[in-house]
Amino acid sequence: MRVNAYAAPAAGQPLAPTTIQRRDVGPNDVLIEIQYAGICHSDIHTVNGDWGPQPFPVVPGHEIVGVVTEVGSEVTGHQAGDRVGVGCMVNSCGACANCRNGDEQYCLKGMVGTYASEDRDGATTQGGYSTHVVVDAHFVLSIPDGIDPVAAAPLLCAGITTYSPLRRWGAGPGKKVAIVGLGGLGHMGVKLAHALGAEVTVLSQSLKKQEDGLRLGADHYYATSDTDTFEQLAGAFDLIVNTVSAPIDVDAYLGLLAVDGTLVNVGAPPEPLSLNVFSLISARRSYAGSMIGGISETQVMLDFCAEHHLGADVEVISADQINEAYERVLASDVRYRFVIDTATLV
Amino acid sequence: MRVNAYAAPAAGQPLAPTTIQRRDVGPNDVLIEIQYAGICHSDIHTVNGDWGPQPFPVVPGHEIVGVVTEVGSEVTGHQAGDRVGVGCMVNSCGACANCRNGDEQYCLKGMVGTYASEDRDGATTQGGYSTHVVVDAHFVLSIPDGIDPVAAAPLLCAGITTYSPLRRWGAGPGKKVAIVGLGGLGHMGVKLAHALGAEVTVLSQSLKKQEDGLRLGADHYYATSDTDTFEQLAGAFDLIVNTVSAPIDVDAYLGLLAVDGTLVNVGAPPEPLSLNVFSLISARRSYAGSMIGGISETQVMLDFCAEHHLGADVEVISADQINEAYERVLASDVRYRFVIDTATLV
Repeated sequence: MRVNAYAAPAAGQPLAPTTIQRRDVGPNDVLIEIQYAGICHSDIHTVNGDWGPQPFPVVPGHEIVGVVTEVGSEVTGHQAGDRVGVGCMVNSCGACANCRNGDEQYCLKGMVGTYASEDRDGATTQGGYSTHVVVDAHFVLSIPDGIDPVAAAPLLCAGITTYSPLRRWGAGPGKKVAIVGLGGLGHMGVKLAHALGAEVTVLSQSLKKQEDGLRLGADHYYATSDTDTFEQLAGAFDLIVNTVSAPIDVDAYLGLLAVDGTLVNVGAPPEPLSLNVFSLISARRSYAGSMIGGISETQVMLDFCAEHHLGADVEVISADQINEAYERVLASDVRYRFVIDTATLV
Repeated sequence: MRVNAYAAPAAGQPLAPTTIQRRDVGPNDVLIEIQYAGICHSDIHTVNGDWGPQPFPVVPGHEIVGVVTEVGSEVTGHQAGDRVGVGCMVNSCGACANCRNGDEQYCLKGMVGTYASEDRDGATTQGGYSTHVVVDAHFVLSIPDGIDPVAAAPLLCAGITTYSPLRRWGAGPGKKVAIVGLGGLGHMGVKLAHALGAEVTVLSQSLKKQEDGLRLGADHYYATSDTDTFEQLAGAFDLIVNTVSAPIDVDAYLGLLAVDGTLVNVGAPPEPLSLNVFSLISARRSYAGSMIGGISETQVMLDFCAEHHLGADVEVISADQINEAYERVLASDVRYRFVIDTATLV
């Protein structure tokens, strides 16, 4: 079937309306009528060519929420009418140690990204800025009642990307957790860390969003542009989740960790960073990285969000506002995620 | 009391015989007649001035084994005639969160090193290249029967420095552990990881010590000078303990880790290292550091070694061979630890 979509025709070009082909529904596939697609910073990096050459035209979008309209003959977990979501992955080998362990994002043969990736059948994947998508049922999540569908879309990337390291490194009661950066990822990090029971501090460049940060669930808010912050908070945290993809002074942030503390990057600046090993050794600290989360963990995250009535703070836009929204994301002028109403893809 | 010792008179000067003053035995002190003192690479760095100015004359030595000859009135854990050891610390504040948690090495007021440090009473500590030492009882370890005393000396630094990260990061049955470097620390790392039940690989610059490595307990041995090694072992390990203090290609070693794997440095090169965050993110890896271990953990390590009949491979020397031994350590010409017979300090 041919469906309406918005695509970047070439690197750095504005996105424009187009149509794309979706494959026939195979026995293990789910056909989804998309309702909402979040705009992630990765979408912009990809279509700008920041991450190398791409198979243009590219339809971005990996924060997808919609309703099932058809399922393949072998599909048992989803049925027509179900509210579902799709995140950053639509396929993986399913057979390697990591896939078998529920870590499809670390598939040893390479997970298949939701857009601009080569699928197992050789086709190029196209993302959620479109009216429909066909996805292997294993990569389709259930959106539980209790989350507003539009607020659920960003959970599929921003939510799981922060939830996974928070859980893995033990954010919870009695733990002091800092979230670096209060953007799309950071605002979910604050909500989730708070809901997990941790004492939450936002470390943001300035105090501009302090009121928001406290409203979202933070207990404390500090400006990293103030050098006193790094003295005042020395050794203060058990866990720091850095949502900023720009290079940071790793040693300065490691110095904010207590013994056995961990600094986790969920974004990767392209430049190599410098690190003094003594920053690690002097308090048995760790510097770690984490990328989204596995499919079953993503479902756990969605269920957790439903239970705690959590969703992203979103600004809903129509398709013709996508290019303007990109400009505003680059200017950090969004609180905290743009979500495209895909009914406007006409 | 004045006791015989060997001291470095100034930075870079050869060590020479001298006498030093040991304090009177206080109520919480233990007087130890030293039998053996290991030579650690740190001793050489310190007296060479590599780590900044030092309070010369410096008597090095923080791998100390001896016999208790007197205890203070409040001491209950040790008595005259006991075989005991002293490692890298002789004091700490005892009151901070880390001390209370058994992590005296990360004392928030700074642990007191066994030599060239300022003790709580303001005196400069002097180490184990001497006939006697007076140490606060909390920092005196019991050397269990079942370890040869001379082979026990290096356990107080090289042993605990490798044991602590191996335990913390789960070396054991079913785990694949690599030890980088087969020197004083590395040879203990191999013995301990093997005794803990892990599958052990040595990553050494060349295959020169391969036979030794396999004898010490390694299952595999690879040369890091062979670039094929890094391709062949990509994603192979759960844990890598890097005992080499020289700078390494962090990204190359991180690439050897499986999902959730950890690279731990137990030595710190003075130069900052470069790291590409993607090396962490692409498989949820961690880069960590670890420094010796706490006092109670050191006792656990000694008991573990006694149970498994483990000690260091040592070459016993007399005091007048110390300077020559330093040359040989710098040339990596020791298998695997020099230990001074302190009866020769005349």
